[in-house]
Amino acid sequence: MKIGGKSYRTIWLETEDIEACKAVFIIDQTQLPHRFTTLRIADVRTMAHAIRDMQVRGAPLIGAAAAYGIALGTNENSSDYAVRQVASELISCRPTAVNLAWAVERMLRVLLALPEPERRAAAWREARIISDEDVKINKAIGRHGVALLKALTKDRDEPLNILTHCNAGWLATVDWGTALAPVYAAHDLGMKIHVWVDETRPRNQGASLTAWELAQHGVSHTVICDNVGGHLMQRGQVDCVIVGADRVTSKGAVCNKIGTYLKALAAFDNSIPFYAAVPTPTIDWSIRDGLSEIPIEERGADEISYVSGLDLMGNVSSVRIIPEGSPVSNPAFDVTPERLVTAIITEHGVFSPTELETLLKTSGLSR
Amino acid sequence: MKIGGKSYRTIWLETEDIEACKAVFIIDQTQLPHRFTTLRIADVRTMAHAIRDMQVRGAPLIGAAAAYGIALGTNENSSDYAVRQVASELISCRPTAVNLAWAVERMLRVLLALPEPERRAAAWREARIISDEDVKINKAIGRHGVALLKALTKDRDEPLNILTHCNAGWLATVDWGTALAPVYAAHDLGMKIHVWVDETRPRNQGASLTAWELAQHGVSHTVICDNVGGHLMQRGQVDCVIVGADRVTSKGAVCNKIGTYLKALAAFDNSIPFYAAVPTPTIDWSIRDGLSEIPIEERGADEISYVSGLDLMGNVSSVRIIPEGSPVSNPAFDVTPERLVTAIITEHGVFSPTELETLLKTSGLSR
Repeated sequence: MKIGGKSYRTIWLETEDIEACKAVFIIDQTQLPHRFTTLRIADVRTMAHAIRDMQVRGAPLIGAAAAYGIALGTNENSSDYAVRQVASELISCRPTAVNLAWAVERMLRVLLALPEPERRAAAWREARIISDEDVKINKAIGRHGVALLKALTKDRDEPLNILTHCNAGWLATVDWGTALAPVYAAHDLGMKIHVWVDETRPRNQGASLTAWELAQHGVSHTVICDNVGGHLMQRGQVDCVIVGADRVTSKGAVCNKIGTYLKALAAFDNSIPFYAAVPTPTIDWSIRDGLSEIPIEERGADEISYVSGLDLMGNVSSVRIIPEGSPVSNPAFDVTPERLVTAIITEHGVFSPTELETLLKTSGLSR
Repeated sequence: MKIGGKSYRTIWLETEDIEACKAVFIIDQTQLPHRFTTLRIADVRTMAHAIRDMQVRGAPLIGAAAAYGIALGTNENSSDYAVRQVASELISCRPTAVNLAWAVERMLRVLLALPEPERRAAAWREARIISDEDVKINKAIGRHGVALLKALTKDRDEPLNILTHCNAGWLATVDWGTALAPVYAAHDLGMKIHVWVDETRPRNQGASLTAWELAQHGVSHTVICDNVGGHLMQRGQVDCVIVGADRVTSKGAVCNKIGTYLKALAAFDNSIPFYAAVPTPTIDWSIRDGLSEIPIEERGADEISYVSGLDLMGNVSSVRIIPEGSPVSNPAFDVTPERLVTAIITEHGVFSPTELETLLKTSGLSR
């Protein structure tokens, strides 16, 4: 997608000539939305730091970053021992990130099957394939999603209003995003659209990442507090909700950023379609009851107690908003029951919760 | 209620001897929760400033403050002209605050009927009556509400979990509060209770005022982001919701701080009772359809774009959290339809939405 009129991915090679390639570039997302900075990453240590400190974040992007981390390691040493050590260093950066482990293990499988001299080039090629596959999947989500948006638009003249929660945009992936892939596809087709962006407390990824990436690509949008969406739906100002998901159950329940359930309730109460857009690996076919089976991570108190932004001097700094004497609670995700979900948008098409089993049977996906 | 173990009201006389009384004290609420400061107010100008700059806020408290403002005016001049001029100066401080105009007009009616020499003492007496009436009404709301909480508690041993949104506590009134009056009554009776406090973006009155006043009075509570309540309800961690209201319709719809509707939806979806606690003057008998008839104030963008808190140096300061290029929208209230409201807790008792008409007939309240 575009930043200041120029096309970017969230991670890219220094040169497309793999034999000569010594480094990748990333966008330092910890500086967004206040500063756009790119970082050149030429060694494993710097990549591990970027993953650990969330300079890159979002499941698909972390996977791609880790794959390039393995490739960077082979620039120095391609021995079994060295490759395995780099792999475990990278996995330890975000131990609960499923995509990271998945990408690293895929790289190991490819590399360890090859003689040492072939590993460096193979590593860079495979990492690039992982990146490109993510882009392809998200483009397909966008294609299927935009058909839904077209159907909602019919012959109306006003913009179609889409509400989203958190950041499931291109900054969380290599390009296009998941929830926002249909939005970018619609925008690029010249459709009139407008996005309501939930600021998404406590970490404000909506306000700081979704708003920023939509603004950069030129998509009309408005930032709102998380309290506002229901009111807008009551007033007819929302035509559909599209969110990403951390996990979707085999029955179509959606585990996503805390607060998603409240928006799904409001959408249902106002007969507005509610969609989650995910690559099919996000569907956990082993889980039937999302509410009882998915453990919800409780994160640190400081995410609630402190808010980070730009101070009067133009520096990024934090202020404490909760009184010292008050405890806080910070569950990071919630589960939206399948009865509130209109459909799941995937790279293979759009499926209502009851149709998900069909997807499993016809697509060759495995439990 | 208590601050640091000592009983306070939000506004009080310098001396109970009305003949000698020259000033009132208030708590400077703009400094909360980070600093507890009281201000001595001895003239109309200072009181007008306190109302305008929200050093005092909350409909009932503003009414009481304005009444004392009139009394302060009579310390200097009790002529018709002077009293009327002070009245219009005070009303202009918060032109949309119904309680303010109501209290000022009540003071005018009393004073202008008296000969000038009797006005000063009458003004202080009447302002004190207005304050005491507010306390009496809120105590009655607490008495009726606590009966509901007792019924919910039955013989359980764990604390009863009450969720509240925004600040309808004693800081918004002269004492006790509206939504929190039943909470304080239950606490003072020794009942085991715990309050989930919505931080209540954009102005964070939950985090900064509700949390602070509960902590000071010793009531167990936890601050959560506005996104969290639905998740807690799904997990059985909320037993009831009690909010205040800016207006209740004759049918029982509740107009309150933005985000209330989302909590009411979640309460309904999880079979949890949802109450609004209000003095009966908050019921607008002329309104039948809250959604179409109540205009919703759109407030300034800075409330969304900037967050205020305590910086690293211990000073209250603001940081910008929304990127410069992104528009924001800030509707301040929403309307919860009567179908989601279990009951309205008033000083005359507890009434389901369909019983409100009975209240109108039996209580001598007027349309």
